[in-house]
Amino acid sequence: MAGALSHINGNSVLHVPCRPDPKQFPCRAFKVSMLCNQSYWASINSDIEAHLKRAIPIREPLTVFDPMNGLTFAAPRSTAPTLCVAACELVGGHRDVALPAASALWLMYSASFIHEHLPLMQSCRPKSDVRHLYGPNMELLIGDAMIPFGFELLAKSDDPARNNSNRILRVMVEISRAIGSQGMIHKQYHQVESYRSNNTKSNHLEKIKKHKGTLHACAAACGAILGGGSEEEIEKMRRYGLYVGKMASGVERNDEELNKLVEEMRASATKELRGFNEAKVQAISNYFESNFMCAQV
Amino acid sequence: MAGALSHINGNSVLHVPCRPDPKQFPCRAFKVSMLCNQSYWASINSDIEAHLKRAIPIREPLTVFDPMNGLTFAAPRSTAPTLCVAACELVGGHRDVALPAASALWLMYSASFIHEHLPLMQSCRPKSDVRHLYGPNMELLIGDAMIPFGFELLAKSDDPARNNSNRILRVMVEISRAIGSQGMIHKQYHQVESYRSNNTKSNHLEKIKKHKGTLHACAAACGAILGGGSEEEIEKMRRYGLYVGKMASGVERNDEELNKLVEEMRASATKELRGFNEAKVQAISNYFESNFMCAQV
Repeated sequence: MAGALSHINGNSVLHVPCRPDPKQFPCRAFKVSMLCNQSYWASINSDIEAHLKRAIPIREPLTVFDPMNGLTFAAPRSTAPTLCVAACELVGGHRDVALPAASALWLMYSASFIHEHLPLMQSCRPKSDVRHLYGPNMELLIGDAMIPFGFELLAKSDDPARNNSNRILRVMVEISRAIGSQGMIHKQYHQVESYRSNNTKSNHLEKIKKHKGTLHACAAACGAILGGGSEEEIEKMRRYGLYVGKMASGVERNDEELNKLVEEMRASATKELRGFNEAKVQAISNYFESNFMCAQV
Repeated sequence: MAGALSHINGNSVLHVPCRPDPKQFPCRAFKVSMLCNQSYWASINSDIEAHLKRAIPIREPLTVFDPMNGLTFAAPRSTAPTLCVAACELVGGHRDVALPAASALWLMYSASFIHEHLPLMQSCRPKSDVRHLYGPNMELLIGDAMIPFGFELLAKSDDPARNNSNRILRVMVEISRAIGSQGMIHKQYHQVESYRSNNTKSNHLEKIKKHKGTLHACAAACGAILGGGSEEEIEKMRRYGLYVGKMASGVERNDEELNKLVEEMRASATKELRGFNEAKVQAISNYFESNFMCAQV
């Protein structure tokens, strides 16, 4: 996987992008203009990052908060948190109510990436190029700290004036399932097993495929829940998230099959957005389609 | 550390008790009768275990739920979940409202034990006798799944009829802090560092000492919050939990110093329980004092 070096505390650390470098994987079949106005997305990303930076300042205990801060921003990024905030605004909610959930999703995704690349003994994972700047012990601990910290951010966003505690608790169940035993962990089990056994590889790859898009589906549904969307809107956003998440997670590189699949997913995703504010729908579609389709080809 | 073998799926697995085997560490200075009526505690433990067994049935995906079930009940037990339920009842709450929090604490403690004993490369931990029945990869994943699952159990215990969502969210913040970057993770960092560096060992041991009892303090406070205790009662229970937690975590084995410390903690702990139902106070004091004081000597 392509990587780029950046610096934390004077040491270099490898960033692994969540999608391939467009220079290395030039767009072909679905090349769309990347010049569409991305200021909407840039502003969402900037707000999530600012929220997280306020939540994880470099403070005591420094021995924990310094590496937590470093690892949170060094890990590759998922577009799921951005989608969470966009979904909230799409159903008419205020951006601020979705920022803690988006930050929690960011933290959970980072923790998962860190733990996925831990150098375990008796491991059957493929060799990773990710450098362990803080050492495996610290990275195990920091990953463990990020998960409850994400839930803490969510729990603290309870605001009696907004009477939103039931929505927050519902979002917590959604996130627990998406990152836990029925979601990301189940997918990671099949990833580990697919490396271990050649005989059952295809079965495991099939299971991994089924899980693709679940984090984006959860993110979009959570945004809609927090934004006060109706049950119908929440389910529409969940399905939209699933489609764009599947596209973000990658599909097979067989061009003909790829073209067909991407067309189907694009059509299904677009269908789910019917009935919402048209200007916002256009911004969402442009962003996800241009990003994900470039990434696939 | 002393261990006992039990069997899961036909394989033997090492259980490491959370306190030393009384046969190997006979009580001396504070030998108190273990014949006191422990049925109250046995009934709490049995209810927590039943609640957890219902929450983690052997169901699909079996590849995740089977080891999660096995590891949850194989890990050594903390008395913190029991204290959570007792504190709830002590302030007049119904036992059922504290069972999800007690189960969450059980899961978090198990996850922490599993990850603490993972065989990492470049590790500076002491060699562990704990056998890895499911393999390090699976045990890393299951630990990661247990933490959000604990939060899910708590979030799902929201009951509109009880109007308890604010209490649940408050308990989530308490638990996040106790197990996260400001609690258990910070302690574990100092544990790792105390093995790595002989020069700074005493500084790290001092920091570890400061963290002792925080999980029990959190558990007791959470029980009191969920049971509807007043702010004064919640803080009394937190302090009581801190004292018994410090006793449970062990103090130095210098007999004279030990006797003095245990006496001081016992007095402080007893003081915190003044004003509550006397019969229940007696049951709590008997249980914790007999267990922990035997464990220390």
